[in-house]
Amino acid sequence: MKDELKIFAGNSNYPLAQEICRHLNLPVGELEIMRFANDNLFVQVLENVRERDVFVIQSFTHPVSDHIMELMITLDALRSASAGRITAVIPYYSYARSDKKDAPRISITGRLLADLLHTAGANRVLTMDLHAPQVHGFFSVPVDHLTAIPIISDYVNKNYGLDSAVVVAADAGGAKRVGAIAERLRLPMAIIDKRRKGDQDVHQGFVVGDVKGRTAVVFEDEIATGSTMITTVQTLLEAGAAQVIAGATHAILCGPAVHNLRNAHLQELIVTNTCHVPPEKQFENLTVLSVAPLLAKAIRRIHSGESVGALFT
Amino acid sequence: MKDELKIFAGNSNYPLAQEICRHLNLPVGELEIMRFANDNLFVQVLENVRERDVFVIQSFTHPVSDHIMELMITLDALRSASAGRITAVIPYYSYARSDKKDAPRISITGRLLADLLHTAGANRVLTMDLHAPQVHGFFSVPVDHLTAIPIISDYVNKNYGLDSAVVVAADAGGAKRVGAIAERLRLPMAIIDKRRKGDQDVHQGFVVGDVKGRTAVVFEDEIATGSTMITTVQTLLEAGAAQVIAGATHAILCGPAVHNLRNAHLQELIVTNTCHVPPEKQFENLTVLSVAPLLAKAIRRIHSGESVGALFT
Amino acid sequence: MKDELKIFAGNSNYPLAQEICRHLNLPVGELEIMRFANDNLFVQVLENVRERDVFVIQSFTHPVSDHIMELMITLDALRSASAGRITAVIPYYSYARSDKKDAPRISITGRLLADLLHTAGANRVLTMDLHAPQVHGFFSVPVDHLTAIPIISDYVNKNYGLDSAVVVAADAGGAKRVGAIAERLRLPMAIIDKRRKGDQDVHQGFVVGDVKGRTAVVFEDEIATGSTMITTVQTLLEAGAAQVIAGATHAILCGPAVHNLRNAHLQELIVTNTCHVPPEKQFENLTVLSVAPLLAKAIRRIHSGESVGALFT
Amino acid sequence: MKDELKIFAGNSNYPLAQEICRHLNLPVGELEIMRFANDNLFVQVLENVRERDVFVIQSFTHPVSDHIMELMITLDALRSASAGRITAVIPYYSYARSDKKDAPRISITGRLLADLLHTAGANRVLTMDLHAPQVHGFFSVPVDHLTAIPIISDYVNKNYGLDSAVVVAADAGGAKRVGAIAERLRLPMAIIDKRRKGDQDVHQGFVVGDVKGRTAVVFEDEIATGSTMITTVQTLLEAGAAQVIAGATHAILCGPAVHNLRNAHLQELIVTNTCHVPPEKQFENLTVLSVAPLLAKAIRRIHSGESVGALFT
Amino acid sequence: MKDELKIFAGNSNYPLAQEICRHLNLPVGELEIMRFANDNLFVQVLENVRERDVFVIQSFTHPVSDHIMELMITLDALRSASAGRITAVIPYYSYARSDKKDAPRISITGRLLADLLHTAGANRVLTMDLHAPQVHGFFSVPVDHLTAIPIISDYVNKNYGLDSAVVVAADAGGAKRVGAIAERLRLPMAIIDKRRKGDQDVHQGFVVGDVKGRTAVVFEDEIATGSTMITTVQTLLEAGAAQVIAGATHAILCGPAVHNLRNAHLQELIVTNTCHVPPEKQFENLTVLSVAPLLAKAIRRIHSGESVGALFT
Amino acid sequence: MKDELKIFAGNSNYPLAQEICRHLNLPVGELEIMRFANDNLFVQVLENVRERDVFVIQSFTHPVSDHIMELMITLDALRSASAGRITAVIPYYSYARSDKKDAPRISITGRLLADLLHTAGANRVLTMDLHAPQVHGFFSVPVDHLTAIPIISDYVNKNYGLDSAVVVAADAGGAKRVGAIAERLRLPMAIIDKRRKGDQDVHQGFVVGDVKGRTAVVFEDEIATGSTMITTVQTLLEAGAAQVIAGATHAILCGPAVHNLRNAHLQELIVTNTCHVPPEKQFENLTVLSVAPLLAKAIRRIHSGESVGALFT
Repeated sequence: MKDELKIFAGNSNYPLAQEICRHLNLPVGELEIMRFANDNLFVQVLENVRERDVFVIQSFTHPVSDHIMELMITLDALRSASAGRITAVIPYYSYARSDKKDAPRISITGRLLADLLHTAGANRVLTMDLHAPQVHGFFSVPVDHLTAIPIISDYVNKNYGLDSAVVVAADAGGAKRVGAIAERLRLPMAIIDKRRKGDQDVHQGFVVGDVKGRTAVVFEDEIATGSTMITTVQTLLEAGAAQVIAGATHAILCGPAVHNLRNAHLQELIVTNTCHVPPEKQFENLTVLSVAPLLAKAIRRIHSGESVGALFT
Repeated sequence: MKDELKIFAGNSNYPLAQEICRHLNLPVGELEIMRFANDNLFVQVLENVRERDVFVIQSFTHPVSDHIMELMITLDALRSASAGRITAVIPYYSYARSDKKDAPRISITGRLLADLLHTAGANRVLTMDLHAPQVHGFFSVPVDHLTAIPIISDYVNKNYGLDSAVVVAADAGGAKRVGAIAERLRLPMAIIDKRRKGDQDVHQGFVVGDVKGRTAVVFEDEIATGSTMITTVQTLLEAGAAQVIAGATHAILCGPAVHNLRNAHLQELIVTNTCHVPPEKQFENLTVLSVAPLLAKAIRRIHSGESVGALFT
Repeated sequence: MKDELKIFAGNSNYPLAQEICRHLNLPVGELEIMRFANDNLFVQVLENVRERDVFVIQSFTHPVSDHIMELMITLDALRSASAGRITAVIPYYSYARSDKKDAPRISITGRLLADLLHTAGANRVLTMDLHAPQVHGFFSVPVDHLTAIPIISDYVNKNYGLDSAVVVAADAGGAKRVGAIAERLRLPMAIIDKRRKGDQDVHQGFVVGDVKGRTAVVFEDEIATGSTMITTVQTLLEAGAAQVIAGATHAILCGPAVHNLRNAHLQELIVTNTCHVPPEKQFENLTVLSVAPLLAKAIRRIHSGESVGALFT
Repeated sequence: MKDELKIFAGNSNYPLAQEICRHLNLPVGELEIMRFANDNLFVQVLENVRERDVFVIQSFTHPVSDHIMELMITLDALRSASAGRITAVIPYYSYARSDKKDAPRISITGRLLADLLHTAGANRVLTMDLHAPQVHGFFSVPVDHLTAIPIISDYVNKNYGLDSAVVVAADAGGAKRVGAIAERLRLPMAIIDKRRKGDQDVHQGFVVGDVKGRTAVVFEDEIATGSTMITTVQTLLEAGAAQVIAGATHAILCGPAVHNLRNAHLQELIVTNTCHVPPEKQFENLTVLSVAPLLAKAIRRIHSGESVGALFT
Repeated sequence: MKDELKIFAGNSNYPLAQEICRHLNLPVGELEIMRFANDNLFVQVLENVRERDVFVIQSFTHPVSDHIMELMITLDALRSASAGRITAVIPYYSYARSDKKDAPRISITGRLLADLLHTAGANRVLTMDLHAPQVHGFFSVPVDHLTAIPIISDYVNKNYGLDSAVVVAADAGGAKRVGAIAERLRLPMAIIDKRRKGDQDVHQGFVVGDVKGRTAVVFEDEIATGSTMITTVQTLLEAGAAQVIAGATHAILCGPAVHNLRNAHLQELIVTNTCHVPPEKQFENLTVLSVAPLLAKAIRRIHSGESVGALFT
Repeated sequence: MKDELKIFAGNSNYPLAQEICRHLNLPVGELEIMRFANDNLFVQVLENVRERDVFVIQSFTHPVSDHIMELMITLDALRSASAGRITAVIPYYSYARSDKKDAPRISITGRLLADLLHTAGANRVLTMDLHAPQVHGFFSVPVDHLTAIPIISDYVNKNYGLDSAVVVAADAGGAKRVGAIAERLRLPMAIIDKRRKGDQDVHQGFVVGDVKGRTAVVFEDEIATGSTMITTVQTLLEAGAAQVIAGATHAILCGPAVHNLRNAHLQELIVTNTCHVPPEKQFENLTVLSVAPLLAKAIRRIHSGESVGALFT
């Protein structure tokens, strides 16, 4: 029982699932996902999963609602097909950004979704770089929370060196995360003090801290339209930064993102493939690193009962 | 407390909500629903709902996953805003069709969704003409289950008379519903014996029962692409029916529906507005009856603690 | 852990449990079931069940309430005795008939019972031929839902041939089930259009469809008093059927059933032993087929994690 | 909402319900309870109960399983009919005796039933003289736990005086309850030291404590077959008691009880009507006191939010 | 999975945990327990526990609230660290004494705590000599309930003989437990009839039953301040007992206990180490027997799926 | 029902409860809280609370575990005493700091406690200045989350003016909170870049941002030992700050806090009374502002169903 490991994948990031499976030397499990005339989704698991240890890989990328429903229906189908244990592998958990009540009468949807996934049948969750580490606590099932920051900062270190670098948080909200990275890399830090007015419309900020003559490395958890990145780079260059590099785990790259980022005077933008980056979204100074080896290792350890925390030492 | 009634509406069928509110002499509650750059939905309730008796109107029409997520996030926002009681009003509960396991390793999504709505914060549900009456039992919260059949059959009776009519089920699955209607209208019944091969591709059937020279009245719960209606009408006319009328509560009317139904040799197709029927989906022999008076009456009775069953006597 | 399989049985159908155990080459587990002076039931499990994979066989036959309480107390005793996994095997789930709200202010007891069994400790359920397939969705635990229809129709095919047969639904409610059988056997179908007035008192109906000169095969899920069968047979013979055969999975055979069915002009009544049929309920043209091989196979597959769906291919 | 009080009653003790309703100046609510041919129970609530404050009166007397199922189906029907609050009034909760694990692999059915009632829809419970006061803690819903001991001991006091009385526990298990009564009445106590062998077969015991020349008042929570009462009285008389009176809240009086107790040399047996005592169970020296005034008072206080604890001061 | 057994221990009784682990030939698992400046507790599990079968040993001794919080935080840490199964081993479950509502508007904290432990992550519980056996029923998870009475009474038997002994309950509440012991040892019993006024202030009682010239053996579940023991011994000696021995499973020994018991004219006080008895609480006629072999045996059996009930035969 | 408001208070901050009740013109509800000899807590509610709207005020201050247990037992007592709605008012929720997994195999105790409070009977929570706003999402019950920041910053504004001030975060973790304050006050911000080594032992940091010649206003959520405040002030003065003021909502002030803060060269330390500050903890330049008016206003609005969000506009 539970001896056999099975990996399934929704439609959001099939290439990542394939890459993970190659690392695990396993085929991607067979799943039929289709859509009825009334726009209802239908999922059928095409392999016996009784008492198996099952993982379902799905990122919450566009179209998010469909990908969430797809995942929940798959979890339910697996549960009622008597799967032994079901782990939802969600490399990009988009609603993590909805993590607090900064306005009256709103939903903390990051928590709601954690409850819904539990109701739908998830016995555990494996995810990466949640917007805030507190989101981990929204789940009532055990969560393994991995980070791509070592992957990105190793790359930066190898390609740029860190001698005269400064780590930059694009806003005060990112200071904690960037402070931890700065400490880890033994680098100074700086913060862009932005005064927000809305979701995408952000006024030019100014730099708190010293970036003059240094390589500024901006770290974000996700990069969506890239519009704030333009002002961030501008602000840093005006403050005297020698060059600007940016790293982000989740590459949403929606709407005018490619156009924005191409013109953002970034030396290089380093992201990972937690969200699928199709060819039409790729451009010269974009580098996509793979999290597949990390996720494959974590899945193998979860399956065999080895420590996952050991991945971080 | 709970003395005040508030009605909110998602984006799926706002005109129906407005009509219901006109009947209740209430404004539609203010709700902000928007979409972030990363395709995440955001809902803010713009009125105080503390201890109020709140109803949220949402049909599961295209795009279904978005409308479901929208409803669940709204329910969660209302709950955490301390609404006194929350009723999800779902005139069209599309996943009711996913009500059994007729293939191995599939989800009974009609049940899954009932659980998800409960998790999201629904204290009760008000719905109409579920595909099978058993779906009522999928909910752990109290459900009021209304039917539009009297509305449709009254219309038929008034406009056609029923003297030489026969009630027809478009397939064996509909025989029970149609049998009940036949009994109610004191009419004979017939069934089209179809041998299905897939979801939309259905072979010509033949009529079990006698339709010769009669007005055949076909009753369905929902009408989606209308492709089976074409063969149904054809089969009935070939079997000697004098004319064919069709009634259906839920007018999905997707894809080639309008084209199909226009050419189906139907005398008249009578539907309701549980799903919004925009002008571009309307055509000559389509009649849309309103369920707003019925839903308004049910909401008022639920709010004031009067019997809803009394609506049916 | 969970390596050892244990089968227990309540008082409702011990012979079936014995037969299943013979197929599995296992003894029936030892259980003491007794009744105190105040009519309270008492159950003691007399074997160690820690971490074992336990199945309890109980049909909901007369006295139904006692058999249900007996099962729930046994499930609770097994759970608190640390059984590894507990499957309630309910060959006849009587309350499946209470599956919808066709009158105001009633209980959908089929759903209530599903919740009670879960509360009492059932981790999964194995059952047969539920009155409606939607009842499957009433359960929050995984359910394996088997059917005796192939057993019965194979018998009919072997003993009667199906060349000039017609499959008959005794009322509109059974049309869907019978339609599926008809399609499977590639036979035409007919329906008795009955106009009901109460639970047992049914007026003579008339046949929708053509049965003249054919062998009419009536399929029901259960047969209780047999009183409707008398009128069904009469109606079919009057409509010109050459002979009438009936098949039903669950043989309740209560009250005047034996007397009724003996005199019903049935060629043969074919049932199974999901409900125990004691000698005094047997008569000449009654044939009882055994579901023990099927249940034994399903139990073995559930235990070893093999596909149960594969039983149906 | 919840302003109106409604009382319903199952079949176990309808006369008590009528008496309670007389005290409350209310009719007993209309309920249809019937049994289908397959022995399934069916309950329909015949009055609107939306948002009402509903109480259902049912004792767990013979046939216990039927009365329990009847209650649970009624609770479920009330819940799904949108009752505002549902209180299960269980004057005699028979399974309270199944309150511990004094043998391996048994069910603590007193707890199981508490969970089942919660699952079935009970929001609160009102009960009387549970076998052990700890059983109160088995419930997850609020419980009001009344006692008939003042009713019985007032009667004894008025009719016998207590000057030379001694309170007797029929076995060590009852010592705590009887000790509390002795303290309350400021009387000495004694215990019968019985060495049990089974459920009904008990060997003659001997008296611990002094009863010589005194009126021995035996207090039990329930009296079933009365067989232990015979030996109790015998033991007390042999130990020199002047006369023996017995009091018990719950009068099961099953099997040979009437015969046994008539011949038990009891001066008087005082019970209450928590269980219905039909004429054929009554005999000369049996006195039945009514708990209806007490239960009516408690129901009125629960309904209006007054202290129920105040009933005991 | 679950193949490896791991034992952890809180701060309440580390020596007992060490002794249990010696018997199991296992190290005590590494746990860091510390306290922040704001008095918050912090627990880190320092070993991989994924899918392991984990036991946590903690008695509810002074400071009780800290030891309870410590246990709950440890359970939560283990669960979120993906332990396979978590058993809370609570040799002394102090709140078992809070098992009923003998005053209005109080908490049955024995039940509350059972629910809290379940919420915190306990999958099962192993405990000893609960104040009342009904407390077992407060738990919704499986409980193994061991007793130290054979350990204590074997010791008494070996060191004193039981020929002229009498077993004494210190109050009516203990009569049931002591009655069972008396039956087991085939000895007569007696009860001290105390009339309580408060928690620690108890008036002198008198003996119900015959103790003249006999060795009186008082059995209690726990011994706290020892103040009632002084009066108990006095009462028994005045009633003519030859000598008084006392046995109690749980040695709280708080406040003036050592002083009280030293001067209580007890021949010997026999307790166990379910609560840690540090050197400063030990005195001449106090004997501490170890429950470690019993607990070790139970843990091994639970782990390997052997019958624990068999420990008592 | 629920018409009457009742306020109770645990032992952690009785003066605050009294002040709140004065504002509400209500007496503090009567509660008996005591401790048994075995260190078990006992709570009795001394007033009828049936159907009342009850609030219990308790801060998680030293001794934290006792205050938590006290609160949970009170909640349970209120629930079982049939309180209509129970709100836990927790001005200082200490475990909010345990909000993420920054080490393997630890508990997110802020979430655990939210679940425990729900289990214990809390229907809602009212709290203030949680360490991170995400902690709000740990609760499954509705939470009203107030802030004392306007109270503190109004005081600063009135007494110091803000013309040449700069808002300072004592570490990167506080940058987000302080960024929001800076934006609100339209002031520049700075951050102390500390490199932590342990819980209390922190190395001297350096200032990111410009504080020269300015009044530095440090904002923290809580102040415990005050040891980091010493280095913070030192760092700021060395960086050229004109003077340093500090504000914190929660005044733990434990251990050497008073000594530390007295010598910290702080112009003024402004805290609130969410935690009780006894006279011996007060000193010259400590100012304690009261949150009682704010909490009283919130309680009144929650009780009467008015918007609480409106408190912030």
